[in-house]
Parts: sequence; structure tokens; C-alpha cells
Amino acid sequence: MRPNIVLFGDSITEQSFRSGGWGASLADTYSRKADVLVRGYGGYNTRWALFLLHHLFPLDSAKPPVAATIFFGANDAALLGRNSERQHVPVEEYKENLRKIVNHLKECSPTMLIVLITPPPIDEEGRMAYARATYSEKAMTLPERTNEMAGVYARGCVELAEELGLRSVSLWSKMQETDGWQKKYLRDGLHLTPEGNAVVFQELVRVFNEAWLSAAEMPYDFPHHSEIDGKNPEKAFQQKCL
Amino acid sequence: MRPNIVLFGDSITEQSFRSGGWGASLADTYSRKADVLVRGYGGYNTRWALFLLHHLFPLDSAKPPVAATIFFGANDAALLGRNSERQHVPVEEYKENLRKIVNHLKECSPTMLIVLITPPPIDEEGRMAYARATYSEKAMTLPERTNEMAGVYARGCVELAEELGLRSVSLWSKMQETDGWQKKYLRDGLHLTPEGNAVVFQELVRVFNEAWLSAAEMPYDFPHHSEIDGKNPEKAFQQKCL
Repeated sequence: MRPNIVLFGDSITEQSFRSGGWGASLADTYSRKADVLVRGYGGYNTRWALFLLHHLFPLDSAKPPVAATIFFGANDAALLGRNSERQHVPVEEYKENLRKIVNHLKECSPTMLIVLITPPPIDEEGRMAYARATYSEKAMTLPERTNEMAGVYARGCVELAEELGLRSVSLWSKMQETDGWQKKYLRDGLHLTPEGNAVVFQELVRVFNEAWLSAAEMPYDFPHHSEIDGKNPEKAFQQKCL
Repeated sequence: MRPNIVLFGDSITEQSFRSGGWGASLADTYSRKADVLVRGYGGYNTRWALFLLHHLFPLDSAKPPVAATIFFGANDAALLGRNSERQHVPVEEYKENLRKIVNHLKECSPTMLIVLITPPPIDEEGRMAYARATYSEKAMTLPERTNEMAGVYARGCVELAEELGLRSVSLWSKMQETDGWQKKYLRDGLHLTPEGNAVVFQELVRVFNEAWLSAAEMPYDFPHHSEIDGKNPEKAFQQKCL
């Protein structure tokens, strides 16, 4: 009976239950109200994500999610002719793939709250430092992602959300409002620090609250312990067992 | 199709998805392999937990959990005649309540991996300091929990696990093996610091590995991105879609 909130995305979603992660914070916020399920696939772009759709979100599910976040684009935006070109997806196809994902989720449940999240900004210097530390002499000499290109995909994502009447979080824009975002929010130029995770969490809570999915307004599944009469516990449970 | 691991317990379970929490760490470890669901009820003792059993673990479920942790006792062990006596449950009843919970879960699924976790040790000085900081002049003058009494319940929990042939984690014993456990593992004399959460996580991973539920040995649900041929992605998904 408890509703599910599904987090569908790439490595930034897959890693969201690490210490300080935005997925774990959501699970904590919705504790006793909804289950937060992680469906994060490191390295995946939207083209590959399409292969998972019917497995992760079967159309005949008796209990489709009440909400889903769709958080791709960091890999789609990898540049052609550079180290990660295998993951590259042209921006127009990226938008069409997102549209297919949204259409599938709407087919699963027309009332599902769908939130699109743009890729984060890229700290190119941080990406290069990470590559040197990881691959040493085999490291790339040119960045495989640029902040400018991530911005192109972020705008595509926000435009699609507007066209489809969906809510979105422009992480690319939001993070760059803060001085020093490069090191404050990104630990290797792309993946998130605990502070960066906190930005995603806060933005999602804001969007969920603006929609109808505010944790504070959802009932607890069972009585708070202070409502239980130690001498007559049955009473509280008779009154409040959702 | 993805298996569920359910964490059933009191506030130490409810808070396990906070930053550095043991529940979130489990969810991260089993990402792409199993869903970790939190069923933590702050303030609850085993007597009150019984009211939840049929709601949380319906006998006619098509998909009972593959594993469950049962982590109660910190509230049962609250002393009679002190501030938290409303939560007190005699140790013999605590053991019988745990037995009822285990029997119910076995009825849900005879193959479920059930792990009993004992209450943590109590830092009485830390509890008193917390009470003074929280309640000021209304604070208790005598501790409402003692480490000795928590140990009585911990032994009862371990004895029951042995009697039923179940695996258990004696958190009460394990934590006290480390010098300075009082402040290192407990933030208010009872609830866990990130280091204390790490102890629970490590002990559970050890126990899960000793049983058949090792995350490392469970297959990924879909291909790792490095297995996907950029020019022919279908191939990887045809071979490996669990």
C-alpha cells in the first residue's frame, strides 16, 4: 500500500545512497510514508536507458510509482572524438529519448509525478585532474565533457519539461549560482560532493512540495509512539492503522 | 522481480538513512541487486511492534522479503519507575515478542534470512547530558536506561537467536570491544554516530555474506556500461536482462 518514489538515472543517481547522498536523504524524509527506490545505472545515456524501461516500469504493474525522477544527460553530453565518445548521444536524440521515457511512465500511470533533472555543470579542470590521477600517462589531454556542452543538454531537458508540462530541476543553472561551485559541489568535476547532493535534495523537496507530494503533509503509517497509551496500546492502533 | 531486504526496528532503524546511516549504506551496497526498505518506528518496543506485523508483512504477499533485520530492545529495556517506563517491556516478554515476530516472518516465507540485532550499549553519562540539554530543569535525575540492563536484553536476544537457529549481531558486545565506545559510537548515549552506524553496517554485511546474501555474488540487473558496444547496444541487452 505504501507508495513508491523511483529515482531513474545514471551514476549520479546510482551513487545517491552514499554518505550524504540525495537519494538517502529523500528516503529519510519519506520514511514511514513512501519507499524511495534507486534505479541508477552508472555510465548509461538515454539511448541505453530505453532498453530498461519495460523491465523497470512494466505497463501491467499493479503498483506503479507515484513519482519518478529522470536524471540523465551527463553521459549523453560526452563529446565526440574524445575519450568518452562511446557514450555520446546527440542532443536532439537525447530530448526524444527523454520524451519516450516520459511517455512510457505516463502510460504506466497518468497521475505519476515526473520530475526531469538536468545534468550538473562540468568543472573541466576537475575532470582533467581526475583523469590524470586515475589514468596517469594514459590520461586524456582534452576534456571529454565541457560545461558549455552540458549546458546545451540542460537547456534541452528544461525545454522538453516545459513542452510536456512537467516539473524540472535545472541543476546546471542552480549550481552555478553559487561562487566556487566547481569544487564545492563537484568532487571530480562531474560527480557530487555531499554539498552538491544537498542541492539536489533541496531542489527535489521544493519541487515535490510544490506538487502534491509533500512529506510533511503525508500521514504517518502508524501512530507516533507518544500517542500510544502504555496501559492500553490497542486503542492507538485501532484508530490509526493505515 | 528484484528482492526486498526489510529493516524492521525502532528509532535506530528509522534513522538509518541519515547521513552515514547503516540502512543507506546497505541500500548502496545492494544497488542494482536488491531494494532495502526501512520500516523503523521511533520509540516502539516489541509489544507495540506486534501490532504492525500483519500490516508490514502480510501473509498473502506475492513477494515477501528475502531478508529482514529485527532490531528492537532499546525501548523494551527502559527502566520501570524512571522517565521512559511507559516503553518498558519485561525481558521474558521481549524474548517472546521477538519469537512471535520471527514466527510470523517464517510464515511469510520459510526461506527468509532473518537477522536479530541486539540493542546497543548505553552510555549513561551521555544519556544524562542529553536529557539536561533537552529538558533543562525538568530533566531526569536518574538514568532511564542502564548499560547493565541493555546487556540483559542483548543476551536474551542472542539466546533466542541461538535457540531458533538464526543469525544475530550482538551490537551490545561488539561496540564495547572498542575503547571509548561511549562517545565514538553513541551521540546521545543511545543513538548512533556515523562510526556507530558503520559498525552495524559492517556486522550486517559480514552476516549477510556468511549466509547466501552476498551483494558481491549477486548479479547486476543489467549490463555494466563498459559491456555495451556503442555501435550495437542491443547485443548486450539481449544477453543480459534479468
